[in-house]
Amino acid sequence: MIKPTPISGFPEWLPAQRLIEQRYIDTIRRVYELHGYTSVETPAVERVKVLEAKGEVDKEIYGIGRIQGEPPKDWEMALHFDLTVPFARYVGQNYGNLNFPFKRYQIQKVWRGERPQEGRFREFYQADIDVIGEDTLPLQFDAEMPAIIHEVFQKLNIRAQIRVNNRKLLKGYYAASNVADELIIPALREVDKLEKIGADGVRQTLHKLGLEDATIDQCLAFANLKGERLGVLEQARALGQGLPEGEGRLMFEQGIAEMELLARELDYIPTENLVFDLGIVRGLDYYTGTIYETCLPDYPMLGSICSGGRYDNLASEFINRKLPGVGISIGLSRLLAHLFKCGSETSKRSCPTQYLITWPEEGMRLACLTIARYLRQHNIAAEVFHEPQALKKQVRYADRRGIPAVIFPHLWTPEEQLVEVKNLSDGTQQTLPLSNLVSQCP
Amino acid sequence: MIKPTPISGFPEWLPAQRLIEQRYIDTIRRVYELHGYTSVETPAVERVKVLEAKGEVDKEIYGIGRIQGEPPKDWEMALHFDLTVPFARYVGQNYGNLNFPFKRYQIQKVWRGERPQEGRFREFYQADIDVIGEDTLPLQFDAEMPAIIHEVFQKLNIRAQIRVNNRKLLKGYYAASNVADELIIPALREVDKLEKIGADGVRQTLHKLGLEDATIDQCLAFANLKGERLGVLEQARALGQGLPEGEGRLMFEQGIAEMELLARELDYIPTENLVFDLGIVRGLDYYTGTIYETCLPDYPMLGSICSGGRYDNLASEFINRKLPGVGISIGLSRLLAHLFKCGSETSKRSCPTQYLITWPEEGMRLACLTIARYLRQHNIAAEVFHEPQALKKQVRYADRRGIPAVIFPHLWTPEEQLVEVKNLSDGTQQTLPLSNLVSQCP
Repeated sequence: MIKPTPISGFPEWLPAQRLIEQRYIDTIRRVYELHGYTSVETPAVERVKVLEAKGEVDKEIYGIGRIQGEPPKDWEMALHFDLTVPFARYVGQNYGNLNFPFKRYQIQKVWRGERPQEGRFREFYQADIDVIGEDTLPLQFDAEMPAIIHEVFQKLNIRAQIRVNNRKLLKGYYAASNVADELIIPALREVDKLEKIGADGVRQTLHKLGLEDATIDQCLAFANLKGERLGVLEQARALGQGLPEGEGRLMFEQGIAEMELLARELDYIPTENLVFDLGIVRGLDYYTGTIYETCLPDYPMLGSICSGGRYDNLASEFINRKLPGVGISIGLSRLLAHLFKCGSETSKRSCPTQYLITWPEEGMRLACLTIARYLRQHNIAAEVFHEPQALKKQVRYADRRGIPAVIFPHLWTPEEQLVEVKNLSDGTQQTLPLSNLVSQCP
Repeated sequence: MIKPTPISGFPEWLPAQRLIEQRYIDTIRRVYELHGYTSVETPAVERVKVLEAKGEVDKEIYGIGRIQGEPPKDWEMALHFDLTVPFARYVGQNYGNLNFPFKRYQIQKVWRGERPQEGRFREFYQADIDVIGEDTLPLQFDAEMPAIIHEVFQKLNIRAQIRVNNRKLLKGYYAASNVADELIIPALREVDKLEKIGADGVRQTLHKLGLEDATIDQCLAFANLKGERLGVLEQARALGQGLPEGEGRLMFEQGIAEMELLARELDYIPTENLVFDLGIVRGLDYYTGTIYETCLPDYPMLGSICSGGRYDNLASEFINRKLPGVGISIGLSRLLAHLFKCGSETSKRSCPTQYLITWPEEGMRLACLTIARYLRQHNIAAEVFHEPQALKKQVRYADRRGIPAVIFPHLWTPEEQLVEVKNLSDGTQQTLPLSNLVSQCP
């Protein structure tokens, strides 16, 4: 006999937690669909050369091989480590069969061959959403991402603050502020550490990079602009006033214009849920315009749970077409694991049943089954107890599973469909026609 | 650049097909939940020793290993090849935290390290449902499985015929018919080929096994009993009349009694959808009582798409407790692939959007967004076109994706929320208050 134990990094939930996970997945999916995004599901397995098409991968990859066959010399197939590479491959492969702009979501597990380590997942859910254009993609979609994420967290009843910035704004500002081209990315990388190592730390490293004090001051002042959208833009414009004419300034102004469009489309979202934050940097090589991060004020330890941005070309490794896109991804398993750990998401309920129909005595079996079928036909989850045991025992069965209510069918006849219903949360009991249960079901 | 191509055995659907797959998964899940079954999801990865706990596995297994690390000498972890072994491990591991009878469903992908071969999947969905008791499990649950499967196929609008038999009935009948104990399983294995090789073929092999002609006649007569439930039971009882008293006959009669109970609980299901078929055999080592197969009369080539049965002990490899169960499993990917291939499931629709809101001119943008938000708040999927292009182009966007209707918002004002709506399937157009769309939405 083998005593089974969990494998580190492969989360697995008990039924009550799994019900919560399902609610999260259903909610995210529904919001994505309400915005017209369609589901794509790719196999867990890709060719290794596809996964590595962009070059060396910094994520750990799990290869697969037949255990009954020869041990693999070269890994040919592997589990995907994110959903972006498989999606790029999918678009490249099915290009002729897709309509652009192509709006897709993808909620799937991904795998990372991490060494076992506290809090590091080796299998986890991501919930991605992207829209891909052909040659061009209107900026309106950059505004759609925060709109969707805002709606997701509203429906999940979690306070979220989405932070938006723009790489053009950043790069243009740095270029116009006299940061040499080859230093822009290294400098941004340092500024990104502002929250971690503080202004003095960043000042030192920027100094080492060779930036002048005045330039450093400008960069730090810029990175500190965050908060109410229109206010941030006004301050950014003010800082930009002094910038010399030229390419850098033009790029800066394009960034401002892009963010203005987002501000306009998203003006209905409260400031506390959507800020412009000129201090966020993200994915230096990948993103080219709008960038997003999302933090949850009630769970600051989580860091950004939902990030993304605008990119120039999704699938350049797989197809000779320019396919710009914008997308964002929710780290679902990381979020849920944290909420479970904090005790913020708990449930007494460990099954979907809304009514347990008790089976009071042998002869009432068919009545019980008829009642259950009636409820299910009206989309209400119902089960009939499996033995004509003592009623107390049957009610305990419901109580242990968090089933909200119990039906006693002793009054039921095919003509007069009366049942007695006990609400297990407050103990109240009432006699009513079966059809009433349908209209009053939560 | 890498030209991406499909990997044999790893099915992947285009958006319109994926929408159908989602509908199938949602339908199956909903029916399972309506009967009070709760979702379990286990990681894709198990320890190899867990997967092989029952001994040599006849399924091909994919091991996993870090491609950045040393090539594995011994496979430690692998992808699950079915959902039963992971579920058994789950129950063994979480025994103290589960309530029995434990009713769970599990809809997940499984992997098989098959060599590439036409029609052989290496990654595919299964949709399992099982209920597990502690020490005992009432027979009522054996009746619940066909009830659930019948409802699933009804809701999928697919004709299905569930076939039920009972291993006790079979073994008891054979034992009482003078088949030696050690020959019962081999004989049943031959009788199972009746449809494939015909009565004469089976007669020959049974003869070779050493069965007497009279016994062979009895076995074949028995295997040919199939059809209307009560009729089959009556004929079986008639054949059983002549059986000598003893253990075999007792077991036979227990089988009859069990099937009678099923007939009683399931009497509302039409005969064409649920038959007793004493010729089906299945899983000779595993199942101990009721057994199920399901064929689809409109797709005879598919064979059984949904099978299962009663077993004595789910998790004997993982826990020292007797946990009998009964379950059934739908081969979802196999079913869908077949329906797609036959052209029985097709859809023009490649996205979930119900209304496309056209964007007639720059200045109407916020009106468009407001209309979309209103519809989404009422759970209607809506998207706003992304550019103020020619209306013809916008309508073509909807048409290509199979979006059923388009909204022209030119009449809309915050006070008088009138919109013009065009139904793209019949071309009709009407002007009506936005709120009407909510009540009349399909």
